[in-house]
Amino acid sequence: MLAEIKGINEECGVFGIWGHEKAAELTYYGLHSMQHRGQEGAGVVVSDGEELKGHKGLGLVNDVFKSAKFDQLQGPVAIGHVRYSTQGEKAAENVQPLLFRAQTGSMALAHNGNIMNAFKLRGQLEEQGSILQTTSDTEVLAHLIKRDGNSVSEGTIGHALNQMVGAYSYIILTEEKMYAALDPSGIRPLSIGMIGDAYVVASETCAFDQIGATFIRDVLPGELITIDDNGLRSTHFAEQKQRKLCAMEYVYLSRPDSNINYVNVHASRKQMGKVLANEAPADADIVIGVPDSSISAAIGFAEESGLPYEMGILKNRYVGRTFIQPSQELREQGVKMKLSPVRGIIEGKRVIMIDDSIVRGTTCKRIVKMLKAAGAKEVHVRIASPAIQNPCYYGIDMSTREELIAANHTIEEIAEIIGGDSLAYLTEEGLEKAVLADDSFNQGMCTACMTGKYPVKEEEKEISYTSY
Amino acid sequence: MLAEIKGINEECGVFGIWGHEKAAELTYYGLHSMQHRGQEGAGVVVSDGEELKGHKGLGLVNDVFKSAKFDQLQGPVAIGHVRYSTQGEKAAENVQPLLFRAQTGSMALAHNGNIMNAFKLRGQLEEQGSILQTTSDTEVLAHLIKRDGNSVSEGTIGHALNQMVGAYSYIILTEEKMYAALDPSGIRPLSIGMIGDAYVVASETCAFDQIGATFIRDVLPGELITIDDNGLRSTHFAEQKQRKLCAMEYVYLSRPDSNINYVNVHASRKQMGKVLANEAPADADIVIGVPDSSISAAIGFAEESGLPYEMGILKNRYVGRTFIQPSQELREQGVKMKLSPVRGIIEGKRVIMIDDSIVRGTTCKRIVKMLKAAGAKEVHVRIASPAIQNPCYYGIDMSTREELIAANHTIEEIAEIIGGDSLAYLTEEGLEKAVLADDSFNQGMCTACMTGKYPVKEEEKEISYTSY
Amino acid sequence: MLAEIKGINEECGVFGIWGHEKAAELTYYGLHSMQHRGQEGAGVVVSDGEELKGHKGLGLVNDVFKSAKFDQLQGPVAIGHVRYSTQGEKAAENVQPLLFRAQTGSMALAHNGNIMNAFKLRGQLEEQGSILQTTSDTEVLAHLIKRDGNSVSEGTIGHALNQMVGAYSYIILTEEKMYAALDPSGIRPLSIGMIGDAYVVASETCAFDQIGATFIRDVLPGELITIDDNGLRSTHFAEQKQRKLCAMEYVYLSRPDSNINYVNVHASRKQMGKVLANEAPADADIVIGVPDSSISAAIGFAEESGLPYEMGILKNRYVGRTFIQPSQELREQGVKMKLSPVRGIIEGKRVIMIDDSIVRGTTCKRIVKMLKAAGAKEVHVRIASPAIQNPCYYGIDMSTREELIAANHTIEEIAEIIGGDSLAYLTEEGLEKAVLADDSFNQGMCTACMTGKYPVKEEEKEISYTSY
Amino acid sequence: MLAEIKGINEECGVFGIWGHEKAAELTYYGLHSMQHRGQEGAGVVVSDGEELKGHKGLGLVNDVFKSAKFDQLQGPVAIGHVRYSTQGEKAAENVQPLLFRAQTGSMALAHNGNIMNAFKLRGQLEEQGSILQTTSDTEVLAHLIKRDGNSVSEGTIGHALNQMVGAYSYIILTEEKMYAALDPSGIRPLSIGMIGDAYVVASETCAFDQIGATFIRDVLPGELITIDDNGLRSTHFAEQKQRKLCAMEYVYLSRPDSNINYVNVHASRKQMGKVLANEAPADADIVIGVPDSSISAAIGFAEESGLPYEMGILKNRYVGRTFIQPSQELREQGVKMKLSPVRGIIEGKRVIMIDDSIVRGTTCKRIVKMLKAAGAKEVHVRIASPAIQNPCYYGIDMSTREELIAANHTIEEIAEIIGGDSLAYLTEEGLEKAVLADDSFNQGMCTACMTGKYPVKEEEKEISYTSY
Repeated sequence: MLAEIKGINEECGVFGIWGHEKAAELTYYGLHSMQHRGQEGAGVVVSDGEELKGHKGLGLVNDVFKSAKFDQLQGPVAIGHVRYSTQGEKAAENVQPLLFRAQTGSMALAHNGNIMNAFKLRGQLEEQGSILQTTSDTEVLAHLIKRDGNSVSEGTIGHALNQMVGAYSYIILTEEKMYAALDPSGIRPLSIGMIGDAYVVASETCAFDQIGATFIRDVLPGELITIDDNGLRSTHFAEQKQRKLCAMEYVYLSRPDSNINYVNVHASRKQMGKVLANEAPADADIVIGVPDSSISAAIGFAEESGLPYEMGILKNRYVGRTFIQPSQELREQGVKMKLSPVRGIIEGKRVIMIDDSIVRGTTCKRIVKMLKAAGAKEVHVRIASPAIQNPCYYGIDMSTREELIAANHTIEEIAEIIGGDSLAYLTEEGLEKAVLADDSFNQGMCTACMTGKYPVKEEEKEISYTSY
Repeated sequence: MLAEIKGINEECGVFGIWGHEKAAELTYYGLHSMQHRGQEGAGVVVSDGEELKGHKGLGLVNDVFKSAKFDQLQGPVAIGHVRYSTQGEKAAENVQPLLFRAQTGSMALAHNGNIMNAFKLRGQLEEQGSILQTTSDTEVLAHLIKRDGNSVSEGTIGHALNQMVGAYSYIILTEEKMYAALDPSGIRPLSIGMIGDAYVVASETCAFDQIGATFIRDVLPGELITIDDNGLRSTHFAEQKQRKLCAMEYVYLSRPDSNINYVNVHASRKQMGKVLANEAPADADIVIGVPDSSISAAIGFAEESGLPYEMGILKNRYVGRTFIQPSQELREQGVKMKLSPVRGIIEGKRVIMIDDSIVRGTTCKRIVKMLKAAGAKEVHVRIASPAIQNPCYYGIDMSTREELIAANHTIEEIAEIIGGDSLAYLTEEGLEKAVLADDSFNQGMCTACMTGKYPVKEEEKEISYTSY
Repeated sequence: MLAEIKGINEECGVFGIWGHEKAAELTYYGLHSMQHRGQEGAGVVVSDGEELKGHKGLGLVNDVFKSAKFDQLQGPVAIGHVRYSTQGEKAAENVQPLLFRAQTGSMALAHNGNIMNAFKLRGQLEEQGSILQTTSDTEVLAHLIKRDGNSVSEGTIGHALNQMVGAYSYIILTEEKMYAALDPSGIRPLSIGMIGDAYVVASETCAFDQIGATFIRDVLPGELITIDDNGLRSTHFAEQKQRKLCAMEYVYLSRPDSNINYVNVHASRKQMGKVLANEAPADADIVIGVPDSSISAAIGFAEESGLPYEMGILKNRYVGRTFIQPSQELREQGVKMKLSPVRGIIEGKRVIMIDDSIVRGTTCKRIVKMLKAAGAKEVHVRIASPAIQNPCYYGIDMSTREELIAANHTIEEIAEIIGGDSLAYLTEEGLEKAVLADDSFNQGMCTACMTGKYPVKEEEKEISYTSY
Repeated sequence: MLAEIKGINEECGVFGIWGHEKAAELTYYGLHSMQHRGQEGAGVVVSDGEELKGHKGLGLVNDVFKSAKFDQLQGPVAIGHVRYSTQGEKAAENVQPLLFRAQTGSMALAHNGNIMNAFKLRGQLEEQGSILQTTSDTEVLAHLIKRDGNSVSEGTIGHALNQMVGAYSYIILTEEKMYAALDPSGIRPLSIGMIGDAYVVASETCAFDQIGATFIRDVLPGELITIDDNGLRSTHFAEQKQRKLCAMEYVYLSRPDSNINYVNVHASRKQMGKVLANEAPADADIVIGVPDSSISAAIGFAEESGLPYEMGILKNRYVGRTFIQPSQELREQGVKMKLSPVRGIIEGKRVIMIDDSIVRGTTCKRIVKMLKAAGAKEVHVRIASPAIQNPCYYGIDMSTREELIAANHTIEEIAEIIGGDSLAYLTEEGLEKAVLADDSFNQGMCTACMTGKYPVKEEEKEISYTSY
């Protein structure tokens, strides 16, 4: 289902490349492939070893760079960022990479994730006389690194990261080096690839495929990667904990062609559909998926159940930012928004409708109603993930607990609210079975929004920090 | 496959509504659902019975109307148009509906199709002192109607249409009436619907679903529909010939949720896939489709063959007008454009790749190469339509015969050129079997681009005209 | 005073050049120097002898051409136009030069003036089956020329012009020739110049100075100039009447550096000021002018009266189209718009304030009030032209008679309304004495708006036309 | 003469208002009247006592605010800024007012002038861990104030200002108070006015006239004004030295209707012309001025000499940012740029041409050549200020000494270079006589660019700072 309708949104994708003649252009294409991770703004900072130069702006990657002149962004090194954000006007200054210049050198930063103690750290910095210009967590890291006039190094970066509590992947660029860091639980994804002799770092592996790079390995939890002309060097700024990769990356955030923690996303979703078909079958004529992110699961469900998979709902490809939303009156007269039912397919059928998740339930309810109006005899809703019952503190912009339908209603109540003839969720065990190859240390998932088991808490971290 | 890559493009979609308080807004949504028929420009003309007012511009419907004020486009009647065109600067004046004002009343026209004798008619008009302002066939019709200072009526419209040779659907609006006309062979689609008491006319039925209207019937070949406050009236300006609906509407032009000549497009494509699976099976592991228009056929092929359907190619949703095409050098290094292979799915597999058609073969070749580079062991190309060997004179912007690969090569040669391990097309009989319910008068297709059997020729028509 | 505030506006300036390698660029500069004649839109049509190509748009010359590529406007011949207009959206299609293409050749037209019988002519054309696309008088001329499929020639142009009643200067361009024509009374200005071997035609001679061309002579009333590679040829399409050049060109329309009918505009204005100083002196300390168009007269008044000329009112150079007009409330609190008083100069002084004309009186009243608020002890208003009491039918967009303050009030009443301590106008004799060197045939002025003596009337012309 | 042609440019104008319901709008109009002080960018920060909100951008005030919504800039307090700058892309972040937010409150700053030791101060701040985001001197002041986490107060502002060496006027805004400060020598202008009960501060008094405010007094050298709801309070952060107001404010920077240090600018310029007429008369027919800034002096020269003042040079009002500069080739053919000679006035005359100053001499040379080409018999150049021979360190963007023609040539050489038949400058004594009412403490001028007598030097200041 559509992130923007549901109210779930992730913040940001990061990209970096070291050692390629066309660094800025490849960063453009890399960001382009991660556009789904953030449509609010985008930016690139390029380095020729002497100077960092940037171009960024509000809007899609295409919009931001349509006026960019790549011949003015020369240099073999670049980092980039796509950003999701909720604010309006202020957003412009928050678009990343943030670029800080000083008389002794420059530093650019790109960040994906969320810092839980950012407000407290910001207050401490201001008490010491620092002036922060943005509301971004990323600027806090820059000030922590530069505190007391420090230079940028593995030591000062590590020391700064250890003061931060949360989920994060960072790419940091100076005239001399590029750094990439992942939080100690590895909640957010971050992978390393190569194209020729050049190193590439990106939030999703689809960025490697986009530019013709080869995947090498994932950055490890608590690891700090340093890349310069001598190659790649690995250090650890924190003890590696069990990996807790955000389950929502599989459920709907990542692109189907990405491999997240070595698992293909489309394949994992198809598998979720197959497991769900076994856990919660239904007597029906056809299986349909809510485009785009539920299509894989619907195909898997159909294949496992032996029912035909059909294109029962169509997504309008041309609904963009400037689409004029129909008024309530016109919606009630039947004017469609982004999704349309394919009446010729639906009419008279008992339909299994696969969706990837339910947050508030309003969209799901609207789709069920639309299918029935198009003539569906029955609509059996099957959700290819466990129910979401808890807020996320690690960078997913989810609704509050009051808005989460599953936090306040039983499955039977939800089925009635959304108007489905039946409703079933994938179980937590089903999700793990579908995604995780084995129970190894590196294959864990953060399922806090479903289970309430939070891998990182602020208090706990503060303690570990003072004892660091 | 992607129309813009292949070089096949249809010109335009038309829409009209009579008798709804929100006529202009519904036209906006109707055009929106037909955006795939033309992305170059869009426009609406609205009537309050006293005055015709218009808003139009270059770009997508959203772009054109983001600055439109619907409260300044009041009136219960509206017509609209989406346009495909190849020209650059001149296009602005050609964007439709064209609106002509005279002291005795106004006339607006919207057109889908192509007039074969437009150049000759234009010359005749100029010899009589007429000044034409656009290069559009539509303006020719306006002058033919108004020649000798005629008023707009069933008679003058019919007389004018009978001078035109080609394929066309027209919607014409005056302060008093709305007219809709279809060429005598019914090559282009045109349907009638209702929403409440209001009449709706549109190129595709998806426009009815979009606005909550109900399909009534198709306009017949040679029929002229007149709508005013007394209701709908049917006359015939020409003898109805056997319907010859453009086969490409099924193959890739129309939206999957439209019914064209009473046949659902997705269902017809799935059926083409099924027939193709029987006509040309292959020993393989998975079936994949080239997004978006070949997905339905791929699902059908998979279902019929018993092989799993997989999402083997991903289309980047964010490649728009401002996307910066990678240089030749970067493409050779592996930078992707609009389509990406899903390596995790493709690698090590024997793949059946379904595409809807081949024009020049360059795109098909690029995709096969891309799949092999992503690790496909074998790629068996199956085309869900017969080979295209002839130019179209009826409104599809296809390559010339020299560029049509199937006009100059055998299937074996094409297979080698595109690099497929095998290649097969759907047969002409297979296409008819998949699409046509029976052989009735109204169910015929124009397959001239595949078979060379042209239903309308200019000379023949000229004769029939003089004998009219 | 400011045309836009007063409600007086002239329509348009025209420019043409034949035989210069940089024809389009020189047209750009020529139009630029005539920007004061029309700020609504601008355009250029260039010819390389084979094809006419144009670039035009809404806005100032600079705005319209900032995106123009002169290397795509190659050719030794060009015509151009700046346009004033009151309409909003429709204006785009009315921007000139109008360019008409036919299979036998193209024609472009640029026009300054007003056709009194345009509505009637338009109706006749439509009755014959012509479709007109704009609301511009210029298009009427094109249709009159092409009626019956005529080619463009001295004969067909002359025949067409003789059907038109009004004041006009026209420049017409085909692939072969350029034509320039002036109405039989020569109400609008039109001059001929040369730059090297190239001929130039323009509404004002300042365009010649702008591009380094030399003035040759004025086009005569009723004359049709034809320019091609054989040089310049003069014919007469109508009998030359006594010249009646619009007096307002001297009063405020033309640029001070132009010579209109062989008289320098600044010098004529200074002379008006001098005559006025003798006709209507006042006991005062300083003389000030309302910028920009009254400065010359004020300098003349000061010089003749022996009083010091001071810069008592300042015009803000940065008040452009996007200036946000202060609300009524803020204006009452003293927020200024385009003009500011120079308090350090005005305070405590008896001021003679020179303005070029009064239309509705509202602006004059506002300025007097402003001067008094800035401390002026007395304000004696002197108008450097006779009172305007009649509407203009020849291309000046003036207020209706109801709005003309001098049509409804005595001088004493007007003085009281505007709040001046005294008020005087230049007499009709004074105006003639200041502008006209002698009483010769060619030196007459149209003073209809002041005197009601209209040199051209529609009925009279209609008669002469039927007897043509 | 034209600042942009000469290469002299001042940086910025500042504005502040406390206690008016329409604070943001009045700031807009105030900035508008000071547009001549900076055309590169503009901004406003408004306060409602709880929050500071801003709107700023590159371009003219009109451009920046055409999309601003004043109903979103509510609050009784505002400050604003217009900026001149030489940089291109980076300028956006340098546009003022700069707005800094912290958890304990916000601070906005607007600045006119130049800080000589800014680079050194910036380095010291960075060594202490501060990160500066702009290249603006203004940000340095913000960091100096907030160093060690200080709050904004008279004490911390004064302490910070005392570390700065140069010429400056500052306006600083917090949620609680507005501060205005002037450097100890009062090199830049800064005045206080009132509108109703509201206090206004502005670089030029023309801003008061623009909004209907009344002038109260100038801010004194070394004075720090604090305004809050209790009224206005004056303190001194530094000992007041003799006022050294920049002479160029009179010569050409300020608007003619402003009073600078209690002297009207137009009157002072007219007086310079009168003194010059006595110091350096010439035998000639007419006196002309180079628009706009030399017009006042030319009128004075004419009045004193008894020669007629004429409009001999016209400035094109429509030459804006997007004006396409004529190529060298076209310029040589006589295509004019911003200034045109009025041939009808100049031809055959002995001309005295008044200009306000000469920097490199190239513009002056071009104008003399243009006048001769228009037929002037003789051109006697009279400059209404002393020769410029030294660079400015206090905020005027002047050419380097190598480029200053008067630093490298005698008057006779310059006369020959520019092609004048004679040349004379106003003497230093003449300038003082024209501008200064008496020799009092407050009436001094900085004439360093003419005389080399710099009132503030960096070393000297550094000493005074350490002894603070």
